[in-house]
Amino acid sequence: MTRDPFEWIGDRAAARLRAGLVRELRPRPADADVLDLASNDYLGLAHHPEVTRAAADAALRWGAGSTGSRLVTGTTELHTELEAELAAFCGFEAALVFATGYAANLAAVTALTAAGTLIVSDAGNHASLIDGCRLSRAETTVVPHRDPEAVAKELGAHDGPALVVTDSVFSVDGDCAPLARLAAVCREPGAALLVDDAHGLGVLGEGGRGSADAAGLAGARGLVCTVTLSKSLGSQGGAVLGPAPVIEHLVNSARTFIFDTGLAPAVVGGALASLRLLRREPDRAASAREAAHRLHWGLTDAGLDAVAPDACVLSVRAPGPEAAVHWAAECRAAGVAVGCFRPPSVPDGISRLRLSARADLTDEQIAEALETIVRTAPRS
Amino acid sequence: MTRDPFEWIGDRAAARLRAGLVRELRPRPADADVLDLASNDYLGLAHHPEVTRAAADAALRWGAGSTGSRLVTGTTELHTELEAELAAFCGFEAALVFATGYAANLAAVTALTAAGTLIVSDAGNHASLIDGCRLSRAETTVVPHRDPEAVAKELGAHDGPALVVTDSVFSVDGDCAPLARLAAVCREPGAALLVDDAHGLGVLGEGGRGSADAAGLAGARGLVCTVTLSKSLGSQGGAVLGPAPVIEHLVNSARTFIFDTGLAPAVVGGALASLRLLRREPDRAASAREAAHRLHWGLTDAGLDAVAPDACVLSVRAPGPEAAVHWAAECRAAGVAVGCFRPPSVPDGISRLRLSARADLTDEQIAEALETIVRTAPRS
Repeated sequence: MTRDPFEWIGDRAAARLRAGLVRELRPRPADADVLDLASNDYLGLAHHPEVTRAAADAALRWGAGSTGSRLVTGTTELHTELEAELAAFCGFEAALVFATGYAANLAAVTALTAAGTLIVSDAGNHASLIDGCRLSRAETTVVPHRDPEAVAKELGAHDGPALVVTDSVFSVDGDCAPLARLAAVCREPGAALLVDDAHGLGVLGEGGRGSADAAGLAGARGLVCTVTLSKSLGSQGGAVLGPAPVIEHLVNSARTFIFDTGLAPAVVGGALASLRLLRREPDRAASAREAAHRLHWGLTDAGLDAVAPDACVLSVRAPGPEAAVHWAAECRAAGVAVGCFRPPSVPDGISRLRLSARADLTDEQIAEALETIVRTAPRS
Repeated sequence: MTRDPFEWIGDRAAARLRAGLVRELRPRPADADVLDLASNDYLGLAHHPEVTRAAADAALRWGAGSTGSRLVTGTTELHTELEAELAAFCGFEAALVFATGYAANLAAVTALTAAGTLIVSDAGNHASLIDGCRLSRAETTVVPHRDPEAVAKELGAHDGPALVVTDSVFSVDGDCAPLARLAAVCREPGAALLVDDAHGLGVLGEGGRGSADAAGLAGARGLVCTVTLSKSLGSQGGAVLGPAPVIEHLVNSARTFIFDTGLAPAVVGGALASLRLLRREPDRAASAREAAHRLHWGLTDAGLDAVAPDACVLSVRAPGPEAAVHWAAECRAAGVAVGCFRPPSVPDGISRLRLSARADLTDEQIAEALETIVRTAPRS
């Protein structure tokens, strides 16, 4: 009897169990009667009848799948329609849609760098940007969180092309990158700036045009943004926004674009309908931010340690991973779904509840959420 | 005026133009009147009314997006239903669905290896497996294409855990890996075997149960398979199949699972409907293989250099990249869509037409395809 190649996986499972860090999937029914403060559906569009109808119609008209790579059969006219409208809305010359936001980030980091490029990466960046840095042929230096001076220092010490990489809204605490200062710091040495606006699109900027718009940088030379279609647009997938030659370069060289199946038509159709709805109802962005502020005020008023939200993501600190899991479970039992972030998903090792605000939260729902979260909070 | 950070991208574009290697997106209309030999829709299910209806219904019932990471709000009961049925169909203990096949491969390679693991990777492996190797902390050695003896030699020279990684059906030429021999070679040293069955599921094995089934290896200890939902199942996404502890390990540690939005309900619903249809109509798999063989015979009869297909992918050599592009364009102009693979997408640098057979090709369509491809072939 030879040994089991996966024996070590059992040891890992036992270690997770001892550390209280076991993750479990909780499948939800279609008609779950919970108050959702856990999803990234910031504008409440994932279940909007106009959006689901458009997704359904796209599946019926264009097929259940795109049937191939974007370069072979996987590009429909629906894809290019979405790309054109997304670029125009966000104020960029061109856009390219990917099957996931993760894939868009891997593509952007790897295709915008080469051997000899210095990547300057914020310590709080999303896993997909970090993996992009690892996959690239470039040298990566990690700078302290939200520190343009540290970025400037690294750029000043490097001779050659450079790419500064940052989330716009950081997904753990919901704080924002100082984009205008980062852009200023990049200008003189001619460094490129790559901004992951996954949590900014639909929420920040005029009518939800995103973080680059909010910072007065939309369409700026040297700036590339990535976005997701799966958060405020309530669908799935990601996109890269930038100058047309950069997008053409991605079409020709980004591995996650070339070697992946194109986004399914239903998903493209859903995202397009959300985008059009947002253009028609621009107040949704401000309503979402307003809801986040009201949640933050309520939590802080009750003495909880919550980070002031720059967009729709809020984080409330818990004493430890087990307390955080217990807290989240108590909230869920009371009908309020909240996220629970803990090691190893959080770079700083701090466990917290992760809440997201939505544009369609009512006064009653905000009051109910606050009451539940405060009542079930661990005594410290 | 400071310099443009993306100036070098213009140089790359000029070099591509000179080399005749510019890639362009060709958006297709919903009602394109072409004979499709380019997609990966091997069973003809992407437009099957039962499948598109299921996709549409899922969007209407479950929403346009899954609204979050699989570990937060992105797992619906529809996801777990698909996972259970997919695992049972393919003969594995458990399955985990990812947003893309690319993400499934990145997850499998990185989560099944650690520092000290040796990865033994076939030279013809798909880009996503190669990127998985790059992202992992393990050492990777590349062995010649389809060479179990070379794999055995590498495993014999290594002391410690090892993972052998291979496509089942290689996506460029459509040839198959010697899975039974690879499994035998892994057994003695206790190495794990990871097989990307993207082009095998739905086509190979009894009723399309995939390459592991065809090799008598389904559910074998030490074996993990990845599949896509975007090819024979006509939808989008990927999955990892394996022992339950391995799947639980992925839930807890795979970055492209934890940090990515769950697959959209419409896409899950479409894949589930395809899977059920295939179970009900198992002959689709054999019909697809039969169509591939008939295409191959016809091309070879006409004196073209075509690789004998082990599944549904066929490759016909062209004299060079420009001739291949021209040939594919001529076919398209005559109403036959074919793929065109050329450097740098092909590791061996050989340009070719890449054809895919489908279960629902009629005798007339096969005759039309052969006539067109042979008539437009470059004179050598």
